Amino acid sequence: QLSDMAFGIRELSKKLSQIRLKLHVKNIFILVKAHDEALVENSRELADWILTKDGDYTVYVEQTLEENSIFDAAGLLEKNPSYRGRLKFWTDDMCAQKPQTFDIVLALGGDGTVLYASWLFQRIVPPTIAFSLGSLGFLTKFDFELYPQSLSTAFADGITVSLRLRFEATVMRSQQRDAKGRDLVEELIGEESEDCHTHRSDGTYNILNEVVVDRGPNPTMSTIELFGDDEHFTTIQADGICVSTPTGSTAYNLAAGGSLCHPDNPVVLVTAICAHTLSFRPIILPDTIVLRCGVPYDARTSSWASFDGRERMELRPGDYVTISASRFPFPSVLPLNKRRTDWIESISRTLAWNSRQRQKEFKEWTS
Amino acid sequence: QLSDMAFGIRELSKKLSQIRLKLHVKNIFILVKAHDEALVENSRELADWILTKDGDYTVYVEQTLEENSIFDAAGLLEKNPSYRGRLKFWTDDMCAQKPQTFDIVLALGGDGTVLYASWLFQRIVPPTIAFSLGSLGFLTKFDFELYPQSLSTAFADGITVSLRLRFEATVMRSQQRDAKGRDLVEELIGEESEDCHTHRSDGTYNILNEVVVDRGPNPTMSTIELFGDDEHFTTIQADGICVSTPTGSTAYNLAAGGSLCHPDNPVVLVTAICAHTLSFRPIILPDTIVLRCGVPYDARTSSWASFDGRERMELRPGDYVTISASRFPFPSVLPLNKRRTDWIESISRTLAWNSRQRQKEFKEWTS
Amino acid sequence: QLSDMAFGIRELSKKLSQIRLKLHVKNIFILVKAHDEALVENSRELADWILTKDGDYTVYVEQTLEENSIFDAAGLLEKNPSYRGRLKFWTDDMCAQKPQTFDIVLALGGDGTVLYASWLFQRIVPPTIAFSLGSLGFLTKFDFELYPQSLSTAFADGITVSLRLRFEATVMRSQQRDAKGRDLVEELIGEESEDCHTHRSDGTYNILNEVVVDRGPNPTMSTIELFGDDEHFTTIQADGICVSTPTGSTAYNLAAGGSLCHPDNPVVLVTAICAHTLSFRPIILPDTIVLRCGVPYDARTSSWASFDGRERMELRPGDYVTISASRFPFPSVLPLNKRRTDWIESISRTLAWNSRQRQKEFKEWTS
Amino acid sequence: QLSDMAFGIRELSKKLSQIRLKLHVKNIFILVKAHDEALVENSRELADWILTKDGDYTVYVEQTLEENSIFDAAGLLEKNPSYRGRLKFWTDDMCAQKPQTFDIVLALGGDGTVLYASWLFQRIVPPTIAFSLGSLGFLTKFDFELYPQSLSTAFADGITVSLRLRFEATVMRSQQRDAKGRDLVEELIGEESEDCHTHRSDGTYNILNEVVVDRGPNPTMSTIELFGDDEHFTTIQADGICVSTPTGSTAYNLAAGGSLCHPDNPVVLVTAICAHTLSFRPIILPDTIVLRCGVPYDARTSSWASFDGRERMELRPGDYVTISASRFPFPSVLPLNKRRTDWIESISRTLAWNSRQRQKEFKEWTS
Repeated sequence: QLSDMAFGIRELSKKLSQIRLKLHVKNIFILVKAHDEALVENSRELADWILTKDGDYTVYVEQTLEENSIFDAAGLLEKNPSYRGRLKFWTDDMCAQKPQTFDIVLALGGDGTVLYASWLFQRIVPPTIAFSLGSLGFLTKFDFELYPQSLSTAFADGITVSLRLRFEATVMRSQQRDAKGRDLVEELIGEESEDCHTHRSDGTYNILNEVVVDRGPNPTMSTIELFGDDEHFTTIQADGICVSTPTGSTAYNLAAGGSLCHPDNPVVLVTAICAHTLSFRPIILPDTIVLRCGVPYDARTSSWASFDGRERMELRPGDYVTISASRFPFPSVLPLNKRRTDWIESISRTLAWNSRQRQKEFKEWTS
Repeated sequence: QLSDMAFGIRELSKKLSQIRLKLHVKNIFILVKAHDEALVENSRELADWILTKDGDYTVYVEQTLEENSIFDAAGLLEKNPSYRGRLKFWTDDMCAQKPQTFDIVLALGGDGTVLYASWLFQRIVPPTIAFSLGSLGFLTKFDFELYPQSLSTAFADGITVSLRLRFEATVMRSQQRDAKGRDLVEELIGEESEDCHTHRSDGTYNILNEVVVDRGPNPTMSTIELFGDDEHFTTIQADGICVSTPTGSTAYNLAAGGSLCHPDNPVVLVTAICAHTLSFRPIILPDTIVLRCGVPYDARTSSWASFDGRERMELRPGDYVTISASRFPFPSVLPLNKRRTDWIESISRTLAWNSRQRQKEFKEWTS
Repeated sequence: QLSDMAFGIRELSKKLSQIRLKLHVKNIFILVKAHDEALVENSRELADWILTKDGDYTVYVEQTLEENSIFDAAGLLEKNPSYRGRLKFWTDDMCAQKPQTFDIVLALGGDGTVLYASWLFQRIVPPTIAFSLGSLGFLTKFDFELYPQSLSTAFADGITVSLRLRFEATVMRSQQRDAKGRDLVEELIGEESEDCHTHRSDGTYNILNEVVVDRGPNPTMSTIELFGDDEHFTTIQADGICVSTPTGSTAYNLAAGGSLCHPDNPVVLVTAICAHTLSFRPIILPDTIVLRCGVPYDARTSSWASFDGRERMELRPGDYVTISASRFPFPSVLPLNKRRTDWIESISRTLAWNSRQRQKEFKEWTS
Repeated sequence: QLSDMAFGIRELSKKLSQIRLKLHVKNIFILVKAHDEALVENSRELADWILTKDGDYTVYVEQTLEENSIFDAAGLLEKNPSYRGRLKFWTDDMCAQKPQTFDIVLALGGDGTVLYASWLFQRIVPPTIAFSLGSLGFLTKFDFELYPQSLSTAFADGITVSLRLRFEATVMRSQQRDAKGRDLVEELIGEESEDCHTHRSDGTYNILNEVVVDRGPNPTMSTIELFGDDEHFTTIQADGICVSTPTGSTAYNLAAGGSLCHPDNPVVLVTAICAHTLSFRPIILPDTIVLRCGVPYDARTSSWASFDGRERMELRPGDYVTISASRFPFPSVLPLNKRRTDWIESISRTLAWNSRQRQKEFKEWTS
């Protein structure tokens, strides 16, 4: 019976990983990187198309576009007075405070724009449709040229959402900067490990790709203590450590030697960056684990933590970062017709696999 | 709400991965490799101890020990006539036909003996306590010297079982050996893919570590078509391919360059063995996938499939192996006091990590 | 002064690695794989062109072509009676016994044909011009379509030859098959190491790419003792070991994880194949070393040695292979105009580097 | 004959790589890291021993020790007035200007102290005997506890010196900082490549281990153009690139995934650090090559160059580093009795190989 129950859970998980949603779209959030003029034009076209399509729709674009001459908000309103009151401008604060305002996010650009969406929506993230202007990426799964069809279908028939695991990462600062005689391992898993006097939170981030703790500008390597739940795993001597979500497995994790990982897997990928020992190998852990990466008190230098390749914060001796699964996953919208094959196709495209021809070998001795 | 539901499922999975069971032990199965004389003595000692402990217990040892002079079954019965009828002998057939007979398996030896238990019990496997005679391994988690305490506690208080994923692997033989004009990709995922006339099953195995398809005795590399569900992933030019369970991640998978994987992760690890292209990297897939590895019809040579490093079967052009999660996991008994830390400890022990001292670096330029 | 002398030697080595030769061509050896009909036609065209070009030239083609209907030797002689006595047929024996007969080898096909030339000429190898029928390879550096220009220039102005390191590999058989109490390490580097009673030579091969000692058809790994000069380096637990020349660095060595190595480097590349320990890394040794790879007496199984991927010989416990630089390098003819850049161009072509455009990244997070 | 000549050169190279020298020792240079009190005591003991041994010897210690209370120069002179005029103090300037002053360097500490010796002596380096205070390293081959025997033998019988390849690395700064329309590839290998107006030298370093060009404090990867002689090899997207000597092969090169390389090999090791493409592999090039690593004009960020892990210089877009074999190798003194086996022993010691026992496997499935 046990086996059967386990089997049932597995099936349930599988179904949950890709969910079909009916949308009641009213407020549509458009995201571009505003410094790219071509993208601003694209977002104008898109806003225009949506506002025309249905008088109930409201479109939000970035505040900075309000006065942007290419976006030309005034021109849009002039052209079609019915847009008035339905073309609005979002701010970072609205994303942080009232994410429920938005029914859907349309991201235009590359995978970097999707990361930016994740960055803006630190808690609840609206379902996000990512349009690519060039070749499709791991996260940008819709061709912008086909947006009229894609959006008409999505608004009418609903969408399929893949709930991408995000991490919640918190920087913990050592209190009372006197390091003498202190031991990070003792403080984190020893008898007094619950003593809140030793460390204090200094900021929490929800991240979609990876947390990296590395040597930053130091020419020498980092020493990093790695903890899992209430265990001290090991002390890593390396350029750094990369803790990646399945979504991030194709990014820095791959460069550091980690495996490709299907986004539906409920796992965490831990990979050392240029380990200075031969005994470390990439490790796949359950996403129910709580990881902590810290700098020992007797380290000669600080390490640096970065979150999705953006923020870079100094971790001084005694500081650490806590990483665990976030309660706020990232709902990435999948193309309807290729829900199951989507990931393999993006891998195949990016690594230049060829599914029907033989791969060109680098050795031809057999000829 | 969606996020919360996903979160709930994740918690449930976590609980299921390690289950506490109360045992009603009556029939105890002892497994050793009978060609090792020392182990035969150990199994005699163990049988004796169990039969003495409780008059309700029945012990099964391997048939070949019935006449073994070291085991000296006659001597045991003579010494203690109450053993009569309670010392029995198992055969391979009993494992295959009536696995429910046995309430628990006691395996003595190394991790290889646990693989042997998995091999014997191709369908339902009784909970297995693995005793190591030397240093502990990934699967042998109990020190034989402490068996009286370990077993007394297990029989009285129950056990914690980790349900290890096994694969069900089936060899599929191409019918009508004329390969001319045939295309494996077309036959497996093309329009006629359901046509049962093309292939026929030739044996199914439940395996605990890995399925390897490789070049076998050929000095040249293999060409292997890899399919996932109804997709053709890629054509691999390599010495072979290793499809590993999380349990097998520390075995051949690691040698082939794959990652270490916590046994609770519901994943499949696919790793090429000496790929002859630079574009292949180890891949982590959900355990809900059905993989197929086949030899194309126009391959110059056969490939060979091996299951847990035991059987080695030739796959001729057109043949393939289907690999999917088995409904019959392997219930490995965990030490009570270290349910959560067990895996990391075995990794740490085996890779010579040191959790309290610094690792010796291979470079000492910093001194 | 010491530094200056070392510097001078280095310069001298550099010059010697690529030598300009004036040819006195008289006897020309044509090599194709005779089972490929298209290549047979090509070799007929080439022989015809050469025999017409100069009445002093003699062309040798493979014996089996004498009666080949596509090559149609009789037709050639009939068409041009002056060919009589100048169209000859070579045998394997002539290559082995009288290699000096031939002034130059023209190899048509892929890199495999060049390996075949190396195989035929086990001692002295005539300078070899390798023509590719398709895309250029690491060893096939001339486009067959341009042979009239290439050969006219070569015969008139001379050629530039790259002397490729070959290995001399000798299989050593343990005498008196009783392994009890014997120790390979003791026999090879211990006090009695010079005792010729323990082992006897069983064949020597000159090889251009690599010697591989591996598990062959065994499903389990190999145990291999590795010796360098009179040192026991280590015991390797692996699928096998690959000992490669710089020329072979782009072949099996690369698949096994070894580095790319410029062919002018006087080095030997030793790479484990799927090592079952984490402590082995590819090693680059001087080509003045004498390596020995052996099977320990207490190994459970044989290993297999293969030479340039051709012969595969069983090494039973106690046997070993000796590998050292051969006195007979392989003189590969380089295109005149790109002597220095040739290798990098072939790497670049084969690994799909692009020297003017940016490489397509596998991550696009930066966009 | 060609083959024979090549063979002769190879033998000559081999002999030159390890040279026996008779010493006429008069001026002895002692090197320690002066901030380590224990080492200062050791250097005092050593100076005392040498000055007593022979009235002709002069000992030089670092200037900063002149007033050091632990070294207590005054106390030494007081104890033995004959030391007067024979205990001298060196400065960085003397190392740079008059390296010929010193007949031998005695380095006390770890491998880092040997790197420091290489740093001090940027041109000619006196033969260097490196004493380890703890376990022996790759460069510290003498046990300090045995210095009386080691030095007596060296002074009386001579030494064996291994000439370690060093690189000469020069930072080249782009002139006229206007990057618009400029192309680094064009400037370095195009028609105007010799135009000295584009770049100007900004410092040259002789280095013993490696030159690293990396992203430094940037969270994003680097884009690096790699040139060999007058060829543009490729554009590398990576955390950085490591160009290592054979001596440095066991340092950062190994962490970045490069091979172990015997110090006698006349080669350069080029290894990408976390390459963001799958098509780059470590490359072994002849030490006669001139490499250049540059930052393209259109790069978004600077890169940083570091030399033996010490100096770290910013390379702005358009700047590059030239790397070639130095005319000033590093003469490392080898223990007399193990000239040939020295390197393998240090590898074996550091990677925990065991030459007589079997290595502990990470998998034990075979038991």
